[in-house]
Amino acid sequence: MQLALLDGQWLDPMQPAFTLQNRGWQYGDGIFETMLLQQGRVRFWSDHLERLQSSCARLGMTTPETSLLQHELHSLCAKRQDAVIKLTLLRSGSERGYRPPQSASTTRLWQLFDAPSNVPPSITVRWCDMRLSRNAQLAGLKHCNRLEQVMAQAEWRDTGIAEGLMLDTEGELIGGTMSNVFLGLDGALITPDLRYSGVNGVMRKNVLRLATWLRIDVEARAVRHEEVHHAQEMFVCNAVRGIQAVTRLEQLAWPVGTLTQRLQCALLEAHPEN
Amino acid sequence: MQLALLDGQWLDPMQPAFTLQNRGWQYGDGIFETMLLQQGRVRFWSDHLERLQSSCARLGMTTPETSLLQHELHSLCAKRQDAVIKLTLLRSGSERGYRPPQSASTTRLWQLFDAPSNVPPSITVRWCDMRLSRNAQLAGLKHCNRLEQVMAQAEWRDTGIAEGLMLDTEGELIGGTMSNVFLGLDGALITPDLRYSGVNGVMRKNVLRLATWLRIDVEARAVRHEEVHHAQEMFVCNAVRGIQAVTRLEQLAWPVGTLTQRLQCALLEAHPEN
Repeated sequence: MQLALLDGQWLDPMQPAFTLQNRGWQYGDGIFETMLLQQGRVRFWSDHLERLQSSCARLGMTTPETSLLQHELHSLCAKRQDAVIKLTLLRSGSERGYRPPQSASTTRLWQLFDAPSNVPPSITVRWCDMRLSRNAQLAGLKHCNRLEQVMAQAEWRDTGIAEGLMLDTEGELIGGTMSNVFLGLDGALITPDLRYSGVNGVMRKNVLRLATWLRIDVEARAVRHEEVHHAQEMFVCNAVRGIQAVTRLEQLAWPVGTLTQRLQCALLEAHPEN
Repeated sequence: MQLALLDGQWLDPMQPAFTLQNRGWQYGDGIFETMLLQQGRVRFWSDHLERLQSSCARLGMTTPETSLLQHELHSLCAKRQDAVIKLTLLRSGSERGYRPPQSASTTRLWQLFDAPSNVPPSITVRWCDMRLSRNAQLAGLKHCNRLEQVMAQAEWRDTGIAEGLMLDTEGELIGGTMSNVFLGLDGALITPDLRYSGVNGVMRKNVLRLATWLRIDVEARAVRHEEVHHAQEMFVCNAVRGIQAVTRLEQLAWPVGTLTQRLQCALLEAHPEN
């Protein structure tokens, strides 16, 4: 069961929603945010809003007014205490041709889904064969061109494997299909710097904040895939599932690490916002 | 004015068409073909069909039955003698999450647009700042992840510039935003080999066929962007606009080349199919 609010109108989730003029289905011309609604509040809403605004700016999309987004978010939050909220912004206003018209508008879709019922604190992951391409001009954005992630997740159906790790075309570790990744190396954390690929995750940003607060050294840099063999611990994170320790990656196994546990605990204490 | 046929139903082009379960708007999870209807026949239909089938196979999408596509195409062709026909196939069947469900279906959208009224035999082009990323696993496909082309075309609005040339992230020439490119060098043709980026165009394929037929040497290989300075001629091609000589690229200028003219003439004689 889900709820959907499209440009201010509640929608029957089974009915057609998008017109032929929408450029989302044409070219993946849009962005999205996936957020956790917890006890009536959206965790890290201000970070999601900030990323959304900067993404719109980078793609030249008209950004909806903050007051409008706040208003719509409140009407969604009134429906549920706990849920996953997805906000998709798609460029609209042309029937064919790559060039966005100067009159292009931004279509807003809010969707409300059940919160995941089972988020284990530690998980098994695998390597994906599908690589991530490099393009500094689009790196970091949570845009709707996601075929690489789609093809990566299609590689396995074993529900015992919770996430797949992805390398870029040069063999650098970038992250999970739907998460960012951190390695613990000699008491410090490293995480891929995302200058060429990957999504600049809201939970990643908050892990970096929490690490500073906990005085854990953390470095964002290029990470060769072989470095996972030297890691003493690993975790993945995203806005919905929080921080999950990686305890198994094919032949490799780790205990839940100290840094991972400290960050998981700190995240529990972090103040939810709306 | 356009006509649209969605999963066998004629559609009011202004009405909502795609449901929330469609993965086209979610992730650009689909492919498309753009074809020229000329005197009641679709040029190079068998090539479009072949590419569509191989694209579906590479992406793990269910391919619609050929007989069904033929049937729908005929009902479109009955409406007009000359037009542009776009066929989009989008994966459908899930509300959230990258993994395509095993029950995923393929949504078929046929659109009929006016044929372009003005296709000059020679054009001015420019360089785009936006680069094409490299990913051998998706190279060649005309999939719906087209933000790079969208951003490239957003770089100019001068209608005197008909096309933008794009380099990949390593500085290799790949093609135009909506066309493939050929350079004439010492009596032979070279064209980018598309092993890492670019769309394997139907017109490109037919230019390669025509070149063989005309005994013009042609090589598909990596093309450094500097090589345009040594070219004696250049043209771009796509299924709708055919072969267009490039006579101006920023400071560079060329006459319409001999090879270009021979191919343009040969294309006029090539037999249209349906």
